[in-house]
Amino acid sequence: MMDEEILRLLKKHPSTFISGEELSRRLNVSRTAVWKRIRHLRSLGYKIEASTRSGYRLIQSPDILAPSELKPLLRVKWLGKTIHYFHALDSTNSKAYELASRGAEEGEIVIAESQAKGKGRLGRNWFSPPYLNLYLSVILRPKISPHQAPFITLMAAVATAEAIEKTSGLQSSIKWPNDILLSGRKIAGLLNEIKSETDRIHFIILGIGVNLNVDEKMFPKEIRSIATSMKREMGQAVSRKDFLALLLKELEKWYTVFLKEGGTVILNSWRERAQIKGRQVKMTSFGETIAGRAIDVDSDGALIIETRRGERKRVVAGDVEYRR
Amino acid sequence: MMDEEILRLLKKHPSTFISGEELSRRLNVSRTAVWKRIRHLRSLGYKIEASTRSGYRLIQSPDILAPSELKPLLRVKWLGKTIHYFHALDSTNSKAYELASRGAEEGEIVIAESQAKGKGRLGRNWFSPPYLNLYLSVILRPKISPHQAPFITLMAAVATAEAIEKTSGLQSSIKWPNDILLSGRKIAGLLNEIKSETDRIHFIILGIGVNLNVDEKMFPKEIRSIATSMKREMGQAVSRKDFLALLLKELEKWYTVFLKEGGTVILNSWRERAQIKGRQVKMTSFGETIAGRAIDVDSDGALIIETRRGERKRVVAGDVEYRR
Repeated sequence: MMDEEILRLLKKHPSTFISGEELSRRLNVSRTAVWKRIRHLRSLGYKIEASTRSGYRLIQSPDILAPSELKPLLRVKWLGKTIHYFHALDSTNSKAYELASRGAEEGEIVIAESQAKGKGRLGRNWFSPPYLNLYLSVILRPKISPHQAPFITLMAAVATAEAIEKTSGLQSSIKWPNDILLSGRKIAGLLNEIKSETDRIHFIILGIGVNLNVDEKMFPKEIRSIATSMKREMGQAVSRKDFLALLLKELEKWYTVFLKEGGTVILNSWRERAQIKGRQVKMTSFGETIAGRAIDVDSDGALIIETRRGERKRVVAGDVEYRR
Repeated sequence: MMDEEILRLLKKHPSTFISGEELSRRLNVSRTAVWKRIRHLRSLGYKIEASTRSGYRLIQSPDILAPSELKPLLRVKWLGKTIHYFHALDSTNSKAYELASRGAEEGEIVIAESQAKGKGRLGRNWFSPPYLNLYLSVILRPKISPHQAPFITLMAAVATAEAIEKTSGLQSSIKWPNDILLSGRKIAGLLNEIKSETDRIHFIILGIGVNLNVDEKMFPKEIRSIATSMKREMGQAVSRKDFLALLLKELEKWYTVFLKEGGTVILNSWRERAQIKGRQVKMTSFGETIAGRAIDVDSDGALIIETRRGERKRVVAGDVEYRR
């Protein structure tokens, strides 16, 4: 908190010095304590000029997702008002799940600069190098039936796709059920974890990972040909905090649309981006392989496939492979 | 564990004494230690005769649900092989959820003799007096899609209804979605809690509460006219451990049927007992009140109601009220 206050004071007059004495008076701590915090802020990447005569001056802020950096950029009503920020976590979803189990409220978010055990769908890993990408988990407590939970997944995919498009200026697409692609490669993935009982949802953890500034050569070999990042597609790094602020705004907007207008609007936006109709696909779902033509996605978020024999199958889980 | 071993030895020769010396030798502890355990077992309700000359003899076992009492009665392949038994818990579901989160396996069960915060559906309480009823939670990890989770609820309702019928010889009925009634009053309730992601279930906690030997006058006033117990309906107490052993057998059987044969068999058995078709009902679901004629329950476990205007509504949550 003292760090946030120091940054606030330094940012207030960006070009001028503020004396150590004034900082120590405003924060009500010793000048040595101020100096210690300045050293700490420098270790986080803040470039702070220090002069024994004039005091301190902020030269440059790092692109980190700390609340002190993020909060001034937020344009949201309630989403992300409480931020749980970590330099490293096993998984933002696991932390958010734990917080929600202990009563954390709708709209609280968890951000980590790196994940030791980043989680992907179906028990897989999510590649999570430090200080380059985005690892976000949002706690939601919608008063809807568990049957409607798939809409939350679709909603989050649409919001994430929009944030990616607005930042990059490029057209994204959604790969069923919830990967976001740029130029046919995966740039973002969602993992939503749900605690529910038969007829109500306790909470949903919306986990969103977006590859922002990671270089192509940093990707593990297994995913290098199928993954991409904003930096790769745009040819330059993006501001991670600006992207996060935009994503939170989009999530708040689309979630509100869903609660007010229901799932149809969400499903339509999702369908527009997914362009799955008529595609030849191959699926593996609960051990069964199904190949055929994708007909549509139904109101439960399930994929309808027509096999060569003309049989219609409804697939709710698994991996889809597009075929020529 | 020493208690279980002492009981096993005492039960082996029910009419004869076993000397303190032999017990201490078999258990490899001092005779004072044996005496301490005997005193503890007596405090649990075991009637154990002690003679300085002849040793110890078991006169009567209490009707408690401890593994030492339950295990000899079990006729199951895998369900309930691991029993977590407690004299008192806040809630068996909460404990089971915690155990499952830490990796407890399919089929592990949690039993408590009393619950301080017994949970009912939709955030309500479940009346949980000590040593009279049954409070059971079962951990399941079905490899099915979250969309199929409602079948697990229906399956558990059918299994519980069968155990109640076989024990009482009386016809039970199911009230949508998962209350079991005898003579039109609630004798059992289910609360199933689920941890899932968009396309797979991590685990389901099957919570089952059955009113067994509680007296009518012990029920809180608010529920006295709508609740009942086995003792009340049968005019005599039932063996709680026998009932539990039977319930576990039924659950194992019906769960296996579901996994092998799918939801239709379950849904049909459920429908037979629910007899909801054609009934005039009134529902409150997510704040909306719907009245009309019940048409059926669909394959997702949702109740289909036809309103007076002829509109069909699909209800997935809430409380149903039967009307004349």
